[in-house]
Amino acid sequence: MKITLKHLAEHLGAALEGGGADSTVERLASLADAKEGDLSFLANPKYAEQLATTKATAAIVGKDCKPAPLPLLRVDNPDLAFAKASLLVCPPPAPPAPGVHPSAVVSPSAKIGRGVSIGACAVVDDGAVLGDGCVLFPQVYVGKDSALGDGCLLYSGVKVYHQVTIGRGCIFHSGAVIGSDGFGYAWTGNGYFKIPQVGTVVIEDGVELGANVCVDRARFGETRIGAGTKLDNLVQIAHNVKLGKCCAFAAQVGIAGSAEVGNGVQMGGQAAIVGHVKVGDGLTVVGQSAISKSVPGREAGAPADKLIWIDSPAKPMREHLEESRNIKHLARLRKTVKELEERIKKLETD
Amino acid sequence: MKITLKHLAEHLGAALEGGGADSTVERLASLADAKEGDLSFLANPKYAEQLATTKATAAIVGKDCKPAPLPLLRVDNPDLAFAKASLLVCPPPAPPAPGVHPSAVVSPSAKIGRGVSIGACAVVDDGAVLGDGCVLFPQVYVGKDSALGDGCLLYSGVKVYHQVTIGRGCIFHSGAVIGSDGFGYAWTGNGYFKIPQVGTVVIEDGVELGANVCVDRARFGETRIGAGTKLDNLVQIAHNVKLGKCCAFAAQVGIAGSAEVGNGVQMGGQAAIVGHVKVGDGLTVVGQSAISKSVPGREAGAPADKLIWIDSPAKPMREHLEESRNIKHLARLRKTVKELEERIKKLETD
Amino acid sequence: MKITLKHLAEHLGAALEGGGADSTVERLASLADAKEGDLSFLANPKYAEQLATTKATAAIVGKDCKPAPLPLLRVDNPDLAFAKASLLVCPPPAPPAPGVHPSAVVSPSAKIGRGVSIGACAVVDDGAVLGDGCVLFPQVYVGKDSALGDGCLLYSGVKVYHQVTIGRGCIFHSGAVIGSDGFGYAWTGNGYFKIPQVGTVVIEDGVELGANVCVDRARFGETRIGAGTKLDNLVQIAHNVKLGKCCAFAAQVGIAGSAEVGNGVQMGGQAAIVGHVKVGDGLTVVGQSAISKSVPGREAGAPADKLIWIDSPAKPMREHLEESRNIKHLARLRKTVKELEERIKKLETD
Repeated sequence: MKITLKHLAEHLGAALEGGGADSTVERLASLADAKEGDLSFLANPKYAEQLATTKATAAIVGKDCKPAPLPLLRVDNPDLAFAKASLLVCPPPAPPAPGVHPSAVVSPSAKIGRGVSIGACAVVDDGAVLGDGCVLFPQVYVGKDSALGDGCLLYSGVKVYHQVTIGRGCIFHSGAVIGSDGFGYAWTGNGYFKIPQVGTVVIEDGVELGANVCVDRARFGETRIGAGTKLDNLVQIAHNVKLGKCCAFAAQVGIAGSAEVGNGVQMGGQAAIVGHVKVGDGLTVVGQSAISKSVPGREAGAPADKLIWIDSPAKPMREHLEESRNIKHLARLRKTVKELEERIKKLETD
Repeated sequence: MKITLKHLAEHLGAALEGGGADSTVERLASLADAKEGDLSFLANPKYAEQLATTKATAAIVGKDCKPAPLPLLRVDNPDLAFAKASLLVCPPPAPPAPGVHPSAVVSPSAKIGRGVSIGACAVVDDGAVLGDGCVLFPQVYVGKDSALGDGCLLYSGVKVYHQVTIGRGCIFHSGAVIGSDGFGYAWTGNGYFKIPQVGTVVIEDGVELGANVCVDRARFGETRIGAGTKLDNLVQIAHNVKLGKCCAFAAQVGIAGSAEVGNGVQMGGQAAIVGHVKVGDGLTVVGQSAISKSVPGREAGAPADKLIWIDSPAKPMREHLEESRNIKHLARLRKTVKELEERIKKLETD
Repeated sequence: MKITLKHLAEHLGAALEGGGADSTVERLASLADAKEGDLSFLANPKYAEQLATTKATAAIVGKDCKPAPLPLLRVDNPDLAFAKASLLVCPPPAPPAPGVHPSAVVSPSAKIGRGVSIGACAVVDDGAVLGDGCVLFPQVYVGKDSALGDGCLLYSGVKVYHQVTIGRGCIFHSGAVIGSDGFGYAWTGNGYFKIPQVGTVVIEDGVELGANVCVDRARFGETRIGAGTKLDNLVQIAHNVKLGKCCAFAAQVGIAGSAEVGNGVQMGGQAAIVGHVKVGDGLTVVGQSAISKSVPGREAGAPADKLIWIDSPAKPMREHLEESRNIKHLARLRKTVKELEERIKKLETD
């Protein structure tokens, strides 16, 4: 869609610098790849020098960005402004129209809200509730007595088990599984006896689950994901885990059973938290690291340098850096000790 | 369901202490969350002090638990007893009734046992065999000539490829894939030539596979999972792997091709075993660790302190702890060496 | 299928040694498991001594293999020859016959090539294009305006989102998801604002994706997987990643957003690459390791000993080995320093 820079600046509340008010943009691109007609942006200072050479028609930049030889839309938060510009310039495809595909199987006892779209071969089981405006792509399954809030979007192949509660405006990507049994067995002496997993899952408003994410139901009580939390693909949330609000976990993260995670916790890819520990607000866990004990966060006044954890088992970043320096220094240390040994020998024989 | 403590004690073979024989429980909860009417339990001593303050109506405890101010059901194995109590107090929802949903697609050449339930949009291909009492939730796929033993439970969206053999009483969670091609290619000099994966998968009785677990078929011969083994969500079992009986692997574990794993092996989340090695009976692999060579277990008389492996590549726990102590000591060691250097200098110049 | 060794030798261009031209093989097996009538092979020298005792009727071996007491088919590349022999001796089951199953839902605006097979409950959305000879197993989903090249094979339950482009001869295993949203949010100050992911995915010819693999669509522009690249189960490819040609990644690998990976890169299981870095041609990343910065490869003349990377964060193998040696030596070093301290004390007091 062709949008003038003037319109864009108004829409974003941006200051337009370097002219071009009537120029139009109609696509999005990175600074490096952009061509005439593309809108680009600078959020990561690593790419700042690309402003000098980009072919973009205009770029959204932050308050502290230097002037550049193309029209700039200056804002407080370039990431956010570019996201909003995206919706204007390149709106995502419209969701499927409301209605139930004839091949879908919807139980007569399910309660379907207004404006709901249910795709081909989707199945909605007895007693399930779909809030207004929900969209189920083809081949979704919603189990018995589960309830989705208004405006949820479930992509093809999402599987929701029975008696699960989902808030409003959630987005679940293909292959996500919500409500599978927690991993629990009692050892009988010659085999595992399955511990019934009779609890549930509660997912609060505005949660997004990536493709093939797994969220297990609780042994009893509930597994809960706080409002606004975002989980990338292939993340594992075990039974009875509690995640706070506005957490963001990268792909392949694993949270073990009964862990309690505060608000605003961020985890890098393949990081983990062991079972039965508490992780405080605002903690960052570096990729591939593993929190192995309870760690307080902002709620307990943890200082900034205790908020980034790394390694398996994880420690504060500062301790890790010191340890790494010491290990790097080891070769020299061995050499020094060897030399000291020689000098002592000499002193002894003198 | 309201159950009296007297009934519960008889059912579990438990000794009821502290009265309350006619009190009833109707829900399950942890000691911390319990309210009047809840049955709780103590299996992890970490939570022992919660017995003093819990609001639970009764708790199942072990033989060595101290008396507490609520009725206690004392047993040998609180985990097992609580699991059995769960089935009485909070029975899981009944499985779907027998019958084939009209939207399911079942090949005329498939053999369907008695009392089988096949959900909406499930597909059972030519020559497949479903034992008595199998339950296929909606959208399951069972491939050509694959056979499921009696009483298997496949949740929505499980995919079983062709010519796979499944034992009795197996439970597969949504998104589990059984029988996909092993990862094998021959390098031709300018590309990969796909190595046909013409073997199969054999899953013995009583195996449970978590959501989105992957079990690859063998290059030739078979990939095999021993009876009673339990795999958590997102676990990867590569081609030609052999898993023993009663293993338990936490989420996101990966077992590489042709590895042979003994009986009763336990693996923490995100742990791994490399290809073509043998891992003995009773080994425990700590989360995020990776077994990189063959390791004997109980079958070879391995002592207890050689049964827990940790790190990537993994070593016995004792070696790891010593190494960690040495690394922790490094800062002090560097300081000591610096001081010795000064003292030697002084001795040399004296 | 019974095949004579003479026929097999001709088919493979192999030299037949040790007689048996008229003997027949009809199954495949490892040297250890083989019985009369089995064809086996030796590619990994680890198993060389099994040639002396195998019950196989014949074995495919390399140029430098010693003579053995059974007929040998000698070739340059035993792995490749055995793969080709597999196709002759144990051909994989024929794909489903062309045709559209009555329960499949194919949009009238989709363009379906010649000889295409669409299985039960599969869904092909508006404007999708399936090239000649494509095979969609049951319950596959192909989204709006996505295009598959000729001869693609999608196993049961694969999900392809909208506007994705797939080359010729690709194989996607069950549960693979292509085109889900990249993981991108802008922080507004009190929550995450979803960054529209309006780019696409391009998968070139001959790519194979394992079960439950996830490939995210780009924020803008494209996520691209180069021709002939092979990804094992549960691999994560984030938005805007570029993978070169003929890469091979083992299970559970994760590649973070906007990483650029060269040609012929190999990654062990559970390895990772962080976002926004470039990894050069021909690099090998050991399992569970994580590339945390840009690393040049063969295209930049990197020497062989800088092509294998290990650890988290990863370093060249040689550095890792030296570091490991130094750490192993630590206990002795501490002992030496203690002794030196004693000797100095003695010198000082003398």
